[in-house]
Amino acid sequence: GRGMSDYPKFVEFHEEGPREGFQIEKTIYPIEERIELINLLSETGLKHIQVGSFVSPKYVPQMQDTRELFKRIRRRDGVKYTALWLNEQGFRKTLSAHNVDIKAQLLFYASDSFSRKNNNLSAMEMREKQRDWVRLYKQEGLPVERAYVMAAFGCNFEGNIPQERILDDFRFILNLAAEEEIPVPDLILADTMGWGNPDSVKRMIGALRNLAPEARIGMHIHDTRGLGIANLQAALSMGVDLFDSSVAGLGGCPFADHGSSRAAGNVCTEDAVFLCHELGIETGIDLDRLIIASRRAEAIISAPLMGRVMHSGGLDKYRKD
Amino acid sequence: GRGMSDYPKFVEFHEEGPREGFQIEKTIYPIEERIELINLLSETGLKHIQVGSFVSPKYVPQMQDTRELFKRIRRRDGVKYTALWLNEQGFRKTLSAHNVDIKAQLLFYASDSFSRKNNNLSAMEMREKQRDWVRLYKQEGLPVERAYVMAAFGCNFEGNIPQERILDDFRFILNLAAEEEIPVPDLILADTMGWGNPDSVKRMIGALRNLAPEARIGMHIHDTRGLGIANLQAALSMGVDLFDSSVAGLGGCPFADHGSSRAAGNVCTEDAVFLCHELGIETGIDLDRLIIASRRAEAIISAPLMGRVMHSGGLDKYRKD
Repeated sequence: GRGMSDYPKFVEFHEEGPREGFQIEKTIYPIEERIELINLLSETGLKHIQVGSFVSPKYVPQMQDTRELFKRIRRRDGVKYTALWLNEQGFRKTLSAHNVDIKAQLLFYASDSFSRKNNNLSAMEMREKQRDWVRLYKQEGLPVERAYVMAAFGCNFEGNIPQERILDDFRFILNLAAEEEIPVPDLILADTMGWGNPDSVKRMIGALRNLAPEARIGMHIHDTRGLGIANLQAALSMGVDLFDSSVAGLGGCPFADHGSSRAAGNVCTEDAVFLCHELGIETGIDLDRLIIASRRAEAIISAPLMGRVMHSGGLDKYRKD
Repeated sequence: GRGMSDYPKFVEFHEEGPREGFQIEKTIYPIEERIELINLLSETGLKHIQVGSFVSPKYVPQMQDTRELFKRIRRRDGVKYTALWLNEQGFRKTLSAHNVDIKAQLLFYASDSFSRKNNNLSAMEMREKQRDWVRLYKQEGLPVERAYVMAAFGCNFEGNIPQERILDDFRFILNLAAEEEIPVPDLILADTMGWGNPDSVKRMIGALRNLAPEARIGMHIHDTRGLGIANLQAALSMGVDLFDSSVAGLGGCPFADHGSSRAAGNVCTEDAVFLCHELGIETGIDLDRLIIASRRAEAIISAPLMGRVMHSGGLDKYRKD
């Protein structure tokens, strides 16, 4: 950080593109193409790749071959290949699949309306349900790695959400961990609908760090309104060292359908990695290899994706010093 | 800035989309469509709109009707409609055209190779030539409004450029203004090739402010590698209140031609305006009207442009407080 901030030395990215990117598309892309993308991502230095989800094939047919995908990808040592599930049935499917690195996580909603819409449960009911998840994970001998608070910067259904409301969710998480005698999971602020800005990000992280000085804080950033990289930089300047992201900006292709959820993709992995490297922060990721993967992603989707560095390339090739 | 920075209260945007966006395209778009876009931009609150350029119709046929464009646009009181020129012939054409608001500016190159490529002159020859421009502007009774230093954050031909080299250009400008007894123009740091990052932006602005504490500092930001908005936010946090930008990100459409200059568009006006408003900084611009103009720009180009807020909309409509 050259004295300008509290940048971490090393940042960890959890790649969600293969799941997020193809789940949102109406088309079902050939499994061979998704395997190829995941194999390319495995060569970049990324340590976490979310391969797919175990969800209802009726509602999300794009993910119906996730089990097969896990069988056929070329696994690289040291890389975790994870999956998403949304209910106990999906979790059981995940457990029974081969070669899935289970990443147990909890899900909280800062917005009651959003929780009702997504889960048919109030935010408080959803919160109580997380206690059941902790117990289930414990039964299976799985550490609870992460706790997300969704809509942590605002919500299209509820508008601005008071900081105290978000902190209250995290207080619940800290208490839950104490009561259930598990380590505090990584605390993830999810800007699910793209409401955050660099100032609100800094304020929220500062408040959360005061509440939980020992916890690791992460962010899940959606680049809905173009502030994704600026928000990520704000989080870096507060020492945050853990981000979800999508190669090429997969999952956010706003062109096909103006104003829809298609605009709500994760922050782009290679643009974020480029930022980190330019700021002198290590990621363990080879930017050039990541660009190869992201160009492949765009070729598979056959539509423009939002990443920039995939088109322009990085700067190292131009540098003489 | 809520105590977090030295944000200005009000930021001024100079809209370059109508010139930058159509000049870079191979297609010549119908003059009626460009008139419509400029007329829409006139209704947004923008105070500076660069309409076109007076350059060689042989090399830049897209701009050959700039004179007619100036005749036919619907001028709004209080808005300046400007043009670009690159040599004395172009300047004379600009003077002779109707209704052009002349914005006299000087052009310096921090990179010798880039200057030779663009001007067939060394950076030092180009620098000396600016003295002639100052005299020419004085003869015509025009204030010298701006002085640009191009490639102020690095250069694809020369790599990193030492800060001292850029400051040396600005020192020359300050001396030139003193010698020619004109007010110091606005000092514009141009990240022509997208090399800046939030830290290098802050460092450069800090150094320039030390050199010229009384001068107004502006930035011309290209969003080549996705850091445009983060860099703009960094500049805001250093008090910079003057930016060039392009509606919808016009001028930067990286999809048609990977790796070419098409990726090098200006930072997107509406995304930047959205950022300012979210940070509590005024712009005098109506974001919703700007989004109308930017959607029109995308419709004219008939290809995806890089702006985000044009697709997602702002946040005010969701807010209840």
